[in-house]
Amino acid sequence: MSGASPTRGEAPEFDAGFQAMLRELFAWRRDVRRFRRAPLPEGCLDRLIDLACLAPSVGLSEPWRFVIVEDEPRREAVRACFEACNAGALGAQEPDRAGLYARLKLAGLDDAPCQLAVFADRSTSQGHGLGRRTMPEMIEYSTVIAIHTMWLAARAEGIGIGWVSILDPLRIASILDAPPDWKLIGYLCLGYPAQENDTPVLQEQGWESRRRPSAVVFRR
Amino acid sequence: MSGASPTRGEAPEFDAGFQAMLRELFAWRRDVRRFRRAPLPEGCLDRLIDLACLAPSVGLSEPWRFVIVEDEPRREAVRACFEACNAGALGAQEPDRAGLYARLKLAGLDDAPCQLAVFADRSTSQGHGLGRRTMPEMIEYSTVIAIHTMWLAARAEGIGIGWVSILDPLRIASILDAPPDWKLIGYLCLGYPAQENDTPVLQEQGWESRRRPSAVVFRR
Repeated sequence: MSGASPTRGEAPEFDAGFQAMLRELFAWRRDVRRFRRAPLPEGCLDRLIDLACLAPSVGLSEPWRFVIVEDEPRREAVRACFEACNAGALGAQEPDRAGLYARLKLAGLDDAPCQLAVFADRSTSQGHGLGRRTMPEMIEYSTVIAIHTMWLAARAEGIGIGWVSILDPLRIASILDAPPDWKLIGYLCLGYPAQENDTPVLQEQGWESRRRPSAVVFRR
Repeated sequence: MSGASPTRGEAPEFDAGFQAMLRELFAWRRDVRRFRRAPLPEGCLDRLIDLACLAPSVGLSEPWRFVIVEDEPRREAVRACFEACNAGALGAQEPDRAGLYARLKLAGLDDAPCQLAVFADRSTSQGHGLGRRTMPEMIEYSTVIAIHTMWLAARAEGIGIGWVSILDPLRIASILDAPPDWKLIGYLCLGYPAQENDTPVLQEQGWESRRRPSAVVFRR
Protein backbone atom coordinates (compact mmCIF):
# COMPACT_ATOMS: atom_id res chain seq x y z
CA MET A 1 0.00 0.00 0.00
CA SER A 2 1.03 3.55 -0.51
CA GLY A 3 2.37 5.69 2.31
CA ALA A 4 1.31 9.05 3.65
CA SER A 5 1.58 10.72 0.24
CA PRO A 6 -0.24 8.28 -2.00
CA THR A 7 0.20 8.24 -5.69
CA ARG A 8 -3.21 7.78 -7.17
CA GLY A 9 -4.40 6.23 -10.36
CA GLU A 10 -7.60 6.74 -12.26
CA ALA A 11 -10.63 5.09 -10.67
CA PRO A 12 -11.40 1.91 -12.59
CA GLU A 13 -14.74 1.53 -14.31
CA PHE A 14 -16.74 -1.44 -13.11
CA ASP A 15 -19.01 -2.11 -16.05
CA ALA A 16 -22.20 -4.14 -16.33
CA GLY A 17 -20.23 -7.21 -17.35
CA PHE A 18 -18.14 -7.04 -14.18
CA GLN A 19 -21.22 -6.42 -12.04
CA ALA A 20 -22.85 -9.51 -13.51
CA MET A 21 -19.78 -11.64 -12.86
CA LEU A 22 -19.52 -10.27 -9.33
CA ARG A 23 -23.07 -11.48 -8.75
CA GLU A 24 -22.02 -14.89 -10.08
CA LEU A 25 -19.09 -14.86 -7.65
CA PHE A 26 -21.45 -14.25 -4.73
CA ALA A 27 -23.77 -16.98 -6.00
CA TRP A 28 -21.03 -19.58 -6.56
CA ARG A 29 -18.97 -18.92 -3.43
CA ARG A 30 -19.56 -21.88 -1.15
CA ASP A 31 -18.65 -23.02 2.32
CA VAL A 32 -16.57 -25.96 1.12
CA ARG A 33 -16.26 -29.16 3.13
CA ARG A 34 -15.03 -31.59 0.44
CA PHE A 35 -11.61 -30.81 -0.94
CA ARG A 36 -9.17 -32.40 -3.32
CA ARG A 37 -5.79 -32.97 -1.71
CA ALA A 38 -3.85 -31.09 -4.39
CA PRO A 39 -1.73 -28.36 -2.79
CA LEU A 40 -2.27 -24.69 -3.49
CA PRO A 41 0.22 -23.15 -5.93
CA GLU A 42 3.42 -21.67 -4.51
CA GLY A 43 2.77 -18.16 -3.19
CA CYS A 44 -1.01 -18.47 -3.47
CA LEU A 45 -1.74 -18.20 0.24
CA ASP A 46 0.49 -15.16 0.65
CA ARG A 47 -1.30 -13.50 -2.26
CA LEU A 48 -4.72 -14.25 -0.74
CA ILE A 49 -3.59 -12.80 2.59
CA ASP A 50 -2.37 -9.66 0.80
CA LEU A 51 -5.84 -9.27 -0.70
CA ALA A 52 -7.53 -9.91 2.66
CA CYS A 53 -5.54 -6.99 4.04
CA LEU A 54 -7.37 -4.67 1.62
CA ALA A 55 -10.46 -5.16 3.80
CA PRO A 56 -11.85 -2.18 5.67
CA SER A 57 -11.04 -2.01 9.37
CA VAL A 58 -12.30 0.20 12.15
CA GLY A 59 -10.00 3.20 12.56
CA LEU A 60 -7.63 1.51 10.08
CA SER A 61 -6.73 -0.79 12.97
CA GLU A 62 -6.07 -3.82 10.72
CA PRO A 63 -6.63 -6.18 13.68
CA TRP A 64 -6.44 -9.42 11.63
CA ARG A 65 -3.74 -11.96 12.50
CA PHE A 66 -3.26 -14.98 10.22
CA VAL A 67 -1.86 -18.20 11.64
CA ILE A 68 -0.93 -20.83 9.05
CA VAL A 69 -1.32 -24.21 10.73
CA GLU A 70 1.17 -26.73 9.34
CA ASP A 71 2.40 -28.69 12.34
CA GLU A 72 0.81 -32.14 12.25
CA PRO A 73 0.37 -32.57 16.05
CA ARG A 74 -1.41 -29.20 16.20
CA ARG A 75 -3.63 -30.17 13.27
CA GLU A 76 -4.45 -33.41 15.09
CA ALA A 77 -5.40 -31.42 18.19
CA VAL A 78 -7.64 -29.13 16.14
CA ARG A 79 -9.30 -32.17 14.57
CA ALA A 80 -9.86 -33.69 18.02
CA CYS A 81 -11.42 -30.41 19.18
CA PHE A 82 -13.79 -30.47 16.21
CA GLU A 83 -14.72 -34.10 16.89
CA ALA A 84 -15.52 -33.36 20.53
CA CYS A 85 -17.57 -30.25 19.73
CA ASN A 86 -19.37 -32.02 16.91
CA ALA A 87 -20.28 -34.94 19.17
CA GLY A 88 -21.66 -32.44 21.68
CA ALA A 89 -23.69 -30.73 18.98
CA LEU A 90 -25.05 -34.04 17.75
CA GLY A 91 -26.13 -34.90 21.29
CA ALA A 92 -27.95 -31.58 21.57
CA GLN A 93 -30.00 -32.10 18.42
CA GLU A 94 -33.69 -32.73 18.63
CA PRO A 95 -34.31 -36.45 18.03
CA ASP A 96 -35.98 -35.93 14.67
CA ARG A 97 -33.00 -34.04 13.31
CA ALA A 98 -30.13 -36.02 14.87
CA GLY A 99 -29.99 -38.53 12.05
CA LEU A 100 -29.81 -35.78 9.47
CA TYR A 101 -27.16 -33.94 11.48
CA ALA A 102 -25.04 -37.08 11.74
CA ARG A 103 -25.02 -37.43 7.95
CA LEU A 104 -23.82 -33.87 7.28
CA LYS A 105 -20.16 -33.38 6.48
CA LEU A 106 -19.23 -30.31 8.44
CA ALA A 107 -15.50 -29.84 8.08
CA GLY A 108 -12.80 -30.37 5.49
CA LEU A 109 -10.02 -30.85 8.02
CA ASP A 110 -8.92 -34.23 6.66
CA ASP A 111 -8.31 -33.33 3.03
CA ALA A 112 -7.83 -29.57 2.68
CA PRO A 113 -4.14 -28.93 2.00
CA CYS A 114 -4.13 -25.65 3.89
CA GLN A 115 -5.47 -24.65 7.30
CA LEU A 116 -5.55 -21.06 8.47
CA ALA A 117 -6.67 -19.71 11.83
CA VAL A 118 -7.65 -16.04 11.76
CA PHE A 119 -7.62 -14.07 15.00
CA ALA A 120 -8.61 -10.53 15.95
CA ASP A 121 -6.08 -8.69 18.11
CA ARG A 122 -8.30 -6.87 20.58
CA SER A 123 -5.35 -5.14 22.21
CA THR A 124 -3.98 -3.47 19.11
CA SER A 125 -3.23 0.22 19.48
CA GLN A 126 -3.25 0.66 15.71
CA GLY A 127 -6.15 2.95 14.85
CA HIS A 128 -5.88 4.77 18.18
CA GLY A 129 -9.24 3.42 19.28
CA LEU A 130 -11.20 5.29 16.65
CA GLY A 131 -14.70 3.93 16.04
CA ARG A 132 -14.58 1.23 18.68
CA ARG A 133 -15.34 3.03 21.91
CA THR A 134 -19.08 2.32 21.91
CA MET A 135 -18.82 -0.71 19.61
CA PRO A 136 -15.62 -2.55 20.59
CA GLU A 137 -16.83 -5.53 18.58
CA MET A 138 -15.81 -3.61 15.44
CA ILE A 139 -12.38 -5.21 15.90
CA GLU A 140 -13.94 -8.65 15.43
CA TYR A 141 -16.13 -7.45 12.58
CA SER A 142 -13.15 -6.00 10.71
CA THR A 143 -11.47 -9.39 10.91
CA VAL A 144 -14.61 -11.12 9.65
CA ILE A 145 -14.53 -8.87 6.58
CA ALA A 146 -10.88 -9.73 5.94
CA ILE A 147 -11.88 -13.40 5.93
CA HIS A 148 -14.74 -12.73 3.52
CA THR A 149 -12.44 -10.72 1.24
CA MET A 150 -10.08 -13.69 1.09
CA TRP A 151 -13.02 -16.05 0.53
CA LEU A 152 -14.19 -14.17 -2.57
CA ALA A 153 -10.67 -13.73 -3.95
CA ALA A 154 -10.01 -17.43 -3.48
CA ARG A 155 -13.23 -18.47 -5.20
CA ALA A 156 -12.37 -16.26 -8.16
CA GLU A 157 -9.21 -18.35 -8.54
CA GLY A 158 -11.13 -21.62 -8.24
CA ILE A 159 -10.02 -22.17 -4.64
CA GLY A 160 -12.57 -23.11 -2.00
CA ILE A 161 -12.72 -22.06 1.62
CA GLY A 162 -14.60 -23.76 4.43
CA TRP A 163 -15.17 -21.94 7.73
CA VAL A 164 -15.21 -24.39 10.64
CA SER A 165 -17.10 -22.99 13.63
CA ILE A 166 -17.78 -26.25 15.46
CA LEU A 167 -14.75 -25.62 17.62
CA ASP A 168 -13.96 -24.34 21.10
CA PRO A 169 -12.27 -21.02 20.28
CA LEU A 170 -10.28 -20.89 23.54
CA ARG A 171 -8.99 -24.39 22.99
CA ILE A 172 -7.90 -23.52 19.45
CA ALA A 173 -6.10 -20.42 20.70
CA SER A 174 -4.32 -22.61 23.23
CA ILE A 175 -3.34 -25.24 20.65
CA LEU A 176 -1.86 -22.50 18.49
CA ASP A 177 -0.10 -20.63 21.32
CA ALA A 178 -1.98 -17.44 20.47
CA PRO A 179 -1.46 -14.40 22.72
CA PRO A 180 -4.23 -13.91 25.30
CA ASP A 181 -5.69 -10.83 23.59
CA TRP A 182 -6.21 -12.63 20.31
CA LYS A 183 -9.75 -13.85 19.74
CA LEU A 184 -10.34 -16.67 17.27
CA ILE A 185 -12.67 -15.43 14.56
CA GLY A 186 -12.46 -18.19 11.97
CA TYR A 187 -10.70 -21.48 11.41
CA LEU A 188 -10.46 -21.96 7.66
CA CYS A 189 -9.76 -24.88 5.38
CA LEU A 190 -8.47 -23.93 1.93
CA GLY A 191 -7.99 -26.03 -1.18
CA TYR A 192 -9.49 -27.00 -4.48
CA PRO A 193 -13.13 -28.02 -4.00
CA ALA A 194 -14.22 -31.51 -4.99
CA GLN A 195 -17.10 -29.92 -6.90
CA GLU A 196 -18.54 -26.54 -7.77
CA ASN A 197 -22.06 -25.61 -6.88
CA ASP A 198 -24.35 -22.61 -6.75
CA THR A 199 -26.56 -24.07 -4.02
CA PRO A 200 -25.56 -24.16 -0.33
CA VAL A 201 -24.73 -27.71 0.70
CA LEU A 202 -27.04 -27.44 3.72
CA GLN A 203 -29.90 -26.70 1.33
CA GLU A 204 -28.97 -29.61 -0.92
CA GLN A 205 -28.90 -31.95 2.05
CA GLY A 206 -32.27 -30.80 3.33
CA TRP A 207 -31.05 -29.13 6.50
CA GLU A 208 -32.34 -25.62 5.80
CA SER A 209 -33.36 -23.50 2.83
CA ARG A 210 -32.90 -19.92 1.82
CA ARG A 211 -35.75 -17.46 2.31
CA ARG A 212 -36.96 -14.55 0.23
CA PRO A 213 -34.85 -11.42 0.90
CA SER A 214 -38.02 -9.31 1.07
CA ALA A 215 -38.93 -11.12 4.29
CA VAL A 216 -36.03 -9.48 6.14
CA VAL A 217 -36.57 -5.87 5.04
CA PHE A 218 -38.32 -3.38 7.34
CA ARG A 219 -39.01 0.34 7.18
CA ARG A 220 -38.90 2.84 10.02
CA MET B 1 -32.92 -18.68 -4.74
CA SER B 2 -33.81 -22.13 -5.87
CA GLY B 3 -35.73 -24.54 -3.69
CA ALA B 4 -34.96 -28.01 -2.42
CA SER B 5 -34.41 -29.35 -5.95
CA PRO B 6 -32.15 -26.75 -7.48
CA THR B 7 -31.66 -26.38 -11.16
CA ARG B 8 -28.00 -25.88 -11.71
CA GLY B 9 -26.14 -24.00 -14.37
CA GLU B 10 -22.57 -24.38 -15.50
CA ALA B 11 -20.05 -22.88 -13.09
CA PRO B 12 -18.89 -19.55 -14.49
CA GLU B 13 -15.24 -19.05 -15.33
CA PHE B 14 -13.64 -16.21 -13.41
CA ASP B 15 -10.72 -15.32 -15.68
CA ALA B 16 -7.58 -13.30 -14.99
CA GLY B 17 -9.29 -10.13 -16.15
CA PHE B 18 -12.07 -10.56 -13.62
CA GLN B 19 -9.60 -11.41 -10.88
CA ALA B 20 -7.69 -8.21 -11.62
CA MET B 21 -10.87 -6.12 -11.53
CA LEU B 22 -11.93 -7.80 -8.29
CA ARG B 23 -8.64 -6.70 -6.78
CA GLU B 24 -9.37 -3.17 -8.01
CA LEU B 25 -12.79 -3.38 -6.36
CA PHE B 26 -11.18 -4.30 -3.01
CA ALA B 27 -8.66 -1.49 -3.46
CA TRP B 28 -11.22 1.19 -4.40
CA ARG B 29 -13.96 0.28 -1.93
CA ARG B 30 -13.95 3.00 0.68
CA ASP B 31 -15.67 3.83 3.92
CA VAL B 32 -17.43 6.90 2.54
CA ARG B 33 -18.26 9.92 4.69
CA ARG B 34 -18.83 12.59 2.03
CA PHE B 35 -21.83 11.98 -0.19
CA ARG B 36 -23.65 13.79 -2.94
CA ARG B 37 -27.32 14.26 -2.11
CA ALA B 38 -28.54 12.63 -5.32
CA PRO B 39 -30.95 9.80 -4.53
CA LEU B 40 -30.22 6.19 -5.41
CA PRO B 41 -32.03 4.91 -8.50
CA GLU B 42 -35.45 3.34 -8.03
CA GLY B 43 -35.13 -0.27 -6.90
CA CYS B 44 -31.39 0.03 -6.29
CA LEU B 45 -31.52 -0.60 -2.54
CA ASP B 46 -33.76 -3.63 -2.95
CA ARG B 47 -31.32 -5.05 -5.47
CA LEU B 48 -28.38 -4.46 -3.14
CA ILE B 49 -30.24 -6.21 -0.31
CA ASP B 50 -30.97 -9.15 -2.61
CA LEU B 51 -27.24 -9.44 -3.28
CA ALA B 52 -26.41 -9.14 0.42
CA CYS B 53 -28.64 -12.14 1.01
CA LEU B 54 -26.26 -14.25 -1.11
CA ALA B 55 -23.79 -14.00 1.78
CA PRO B 56 -22.85 -17.15 3.66
CA SER B 57 -24.51 -17.65 7.03
CA VAL B 58 -23.92 -20.11 9.81
CA GLY B 59 -26.22 -23.11 9.38
CA LEU B 60 -27.96 -21.17 6.58
CA SER B 61 -29.54 -19.14 9.37
CA GLU B 62 -29.67 -15.90 7.32
CA PRO B 63 -29.86 -13.83 10.54
CA TRP B 64 -29.59 -10.42 8.81
CA ARG B 65 -32.42 -7.94 9.22
CA PHE B 66 -32.41 -4.73 7.18
CA VAL B 67 -34.15 -1.63 8.52
CA ILE B 68 -34.46 1.22 6.03
CA VAL B 69 -34.53 4.44 8.07
CA GLU B 70 -36.64 7.10 6.36
CA ASP B 71 -38.57 8.80 9.16
CA GLU B 72 -37.03 12.22 9.76
CA PRO B 73 -37.49 12.30 13.58
CA ARG B 74 -35.81 8.91 13.83
CA ARG B 75 -32.96 10.13 11.62
CA GLU B 76 -32.62 13.16 13.88
CA ALA B 77 -32.41 10.90 16.91
CA VAL B 78 -29.72 8.78 15.25
CA ARG B 79 -27.77 11.93 14.40
CA ALA B 80 -28.05 13.12 18.01
CA CYS B 81 -26.79 9.74 19.21
CA PHE B 82 -23.79 10.05 16.90
CA GLU B 83 -23.07 13.59 18.11
CA ALA B 84 -23.14 12.50 21.75
CA CYS B 85 -20.94 9.47 21.18
CA ASN B 86 -18.54 11.46 19.04
CA ALA B 87 -18.22 14.14 21.71
CA GLY B 88 -17.45 11.41 24.22
CA ALA B 89 -14.82 9.93 21.93
CA LEU B 90 -13.24 13.34 21.38
CA GLY B 91 -13.04 13.85 25.11
CA ALA B 92 -11.32 10.49 25.53
CA GLN B 93 -8.58 11.28 23.01
CA GLU B 94 -5.04 11.86 24.15
CA PRO B 95 -4.36 15.62 24.04
CA ASP B 96 -1.92 15.39 21.14
CA ARG B 97 -4.49 13.66 18.94
CA ALA B 98 -7.66 15.51 19.96
CA GLY B 99 -7.16 18.27 17.39
CA LEU B 100 -6.69 15.77 14.62
CA TYR B 101 -9.72 13.77 15.79
CA ALA B 102 -11.88 16.90 15.81
CA ARG B 103 -11.00 17.59 12.18
CA LEU B 104 -11.97 14.12 10.94
CA LYS B 105 -15.31 13.75 9.25
CA LEU B 106 -16.65 10.51 10.66
CA ALA B 107 -20.20 10.14 9.37
CA GLY B 108 -22.20 10.93 6.26
CA LEU B 109 -25.52 11.21 8.10
CA ASP B 110 -26.28 14.71 6.83
CA ASP B 111 -26.00 14.15 3.10
CA ALA B 112 -26.34 10.46 2.31
CA PRO B 113 -29.77 9.90 0.72
CA CYS B 114 -30.18 6.47 2.24
CA GLN B 115 -29.69 5.15 5.78
CA LEU B 116 -29.83 1.47 6.60
CA ALA B 117 -29.53 -0.21 9.98
CA VAL B 118 -28.52 -3.85 9.82
CA PHE B 119 -29.30 -6.11 12.76
CA ALA B 120 -28.52 -9.74 13.60
CA ASP B 121 -31.46 -11.75 14.91
CA ARG B 122 -29.86 -13.81 17.66
CA SER B 123 -33.10 -15.63 18.38
CA THR B 124 -33.68 -17.00 14.91
CA SER B 125 -34.47 -20.69 14.75
CA GLN B 126 -33.55 -20.80 11.07
CA GLY B 127 -30.50 -23.04 10.71
CA HIS B 128 -31.56 -25.12 13.72
CA GLY B 129 -28.55 -23.93 15.71
CA LEU B 130 -26.01 -25.59 13.44
CA GLY B 131 -22.48 -24.21 13.81
CA ARG B 132 -23.24 -21.78 16.59
CA ARG B 133 -23.24 -23.86 19.72
CA THR B 134 -19.62 -23.20 20.66
CA MET B 135 -19.36 -19.96 18.66
CA PRO B 136 -22.72 -18.18 19.00
CA GLU B 137 -21.09 -15.04 17.62
CA MET B 138 -21.32 -16.66 14.17
CA ILE B 139 -24.77 -15.06 13.94
CA GLU B 140 -23.20 -11.62 14.16
CA TYR B 141 -20.38 -12.58 11.82
CA SER B 142 -22.83 -13.81 9.18
CA THR B 143 -24.53 -10.43 9.28
CA VAL B 144 -21.20 -8.62 8.97
CA ILE B 145 -20.52 -10.58 5.78
CA ALA B 146 -23.92 -9.63 4.37
CA ILE B 147 -23.00 -5.98 4.93
CA HIS B 148 -19.65 -6.47 3.22
CA THR B 149 -21.31 -8.24 0.30
CA MET B 150 -23.60 -5.24 -0.15
CA TRP B 151 -20.64 -2.86 0.21
CA LEU B 152 -18.77 -4.48 -2.66
CA ALA B 153 -21.85 -4.76 -4.87
CA ALA B 154 -22.64 -1.10 -4.24
CA ARG B 155 -19.11 0.07 -5.05
CA ALA B 156 -19.22 -1.87 -8.32
CA GLU B 157 -22.23 0.28 -9.23
CA GLY B 158 -20.47 3.50 -8.19
CA ILE B 159 -22.40 3.71 -4.92
CA GLY B 160 -20.56 4.39 -1.69
CA ILE B 161 -21.26 3.01 1.77
CA GLY B 162 -20.12 4.43 5.08
CA TRP B 163 -20.32 2.31 8.22
CA VAL B 164 -21.01 4.47 11.28
CA SER B 165 -19.86 2.79 14.50
CA ILE B 166 -19.65 5.86 16.73
CA LEU B 167 -23.13 5.08 18.05
CA ASP B 168 -24.70 3.49 21.10
CA PRO B 169 -26.10 0.28 19.61
CA LEU B 170 -28.80 -0.14 22.26
CA ARG B 171 -29.97 3.42 21.74
CA ILE B 172 -30.18 2.89 17.98
CA ALA B 173 -32.19 -0.29 18.50
CA SER B 174 -34.56 1.66 20.72
CA ILE B 175 -34.92 4.53 18.23
CA LEU B 176 -35.81 2.03 15.55
CA ASP B 177 -38.15 -0.08 17.69
CA ALA B 178 -36.11 -3.19 17.03
CA PRO B 179 -37.11 -6.41 18.80
CA PRO B 180 -35.02 -7.19 21.91
CA ASP B 181 -33.17 -10.10 20.31
CA TRP B 182 -31.91 -8.03 17.41
CA LYS B 183 -28.35 -6.79 17.83
CA LEU B 184 -27.23 -3.76 15.85
CA ILE B 185 -24.30 -4.77 13.66
CA GLY B 186 -23.93 -1.79 11.35
CA TYR B 187 -25.54 1.57 10.70
CA LEU B 188 -24.90 2.39 7.06
CA CYS B 189 -25.07 5.52 4.94
CA LEU B 190 -25.49 4.89 1.22
CA GLY B 191 -25.23 7.27 -1.71
CA TYR B 192 -22.98 8.52 -4.46
CA PRO B 193 -19.59 9.45 -3.04
CA ALA B 194 -18.33 13.01 -3.42
CA GLN B 195 -15.05 11.57 -4.73
CA GLU B 196 -13.43 8.27 -5.54
CA ASN B 197 -10.21 7.22 -3.94
CA ASP B 198 -7.96 4.20 -3.55
CA THR B 199 -6.48 5.38 -0.25
CA PRO B 200 -8.33 5.13 3.09
CA VAL B 201 -9.42 8.58 4.21
CA LEU B 202 -7.90 8.01 7.67
CA GLN B 203 -4.54 7.46 5.97
CA GLU B 204 -4.94 10.58 3.84
CA GLN B 205 -5.74 12.63 6.90
CA GLY B 206 -2.76 11.36 8.84
CA TRP B 207 -4.69 9.39 11.47
CA GLU B 208 -3.23 5.95 10.77
CA SER B 209 -1.50 4.11 7.95
CA ARG B 210 -1.67 0.63 6.55
CA ARG B 211 1.01 -1.88 7.47
CA ARG B 212 2.72 -4.61 5.49
CA PRO B 213 0.54 -7.77 5.33
CA SER B 214 3.60 -9.93 6.05
CA ALA B 215 3.70 -8.43 9.54
CA VAL B 216 0.46 -10.19 10.49
CA VAL B 217 1.29 -13.71 9.24
CA PHE B 218 2.47 -16.39 11.65
CA ARG B 219 3.20 -20.10 11.32
CA ARG B 220 2.45 -22.84 13.82
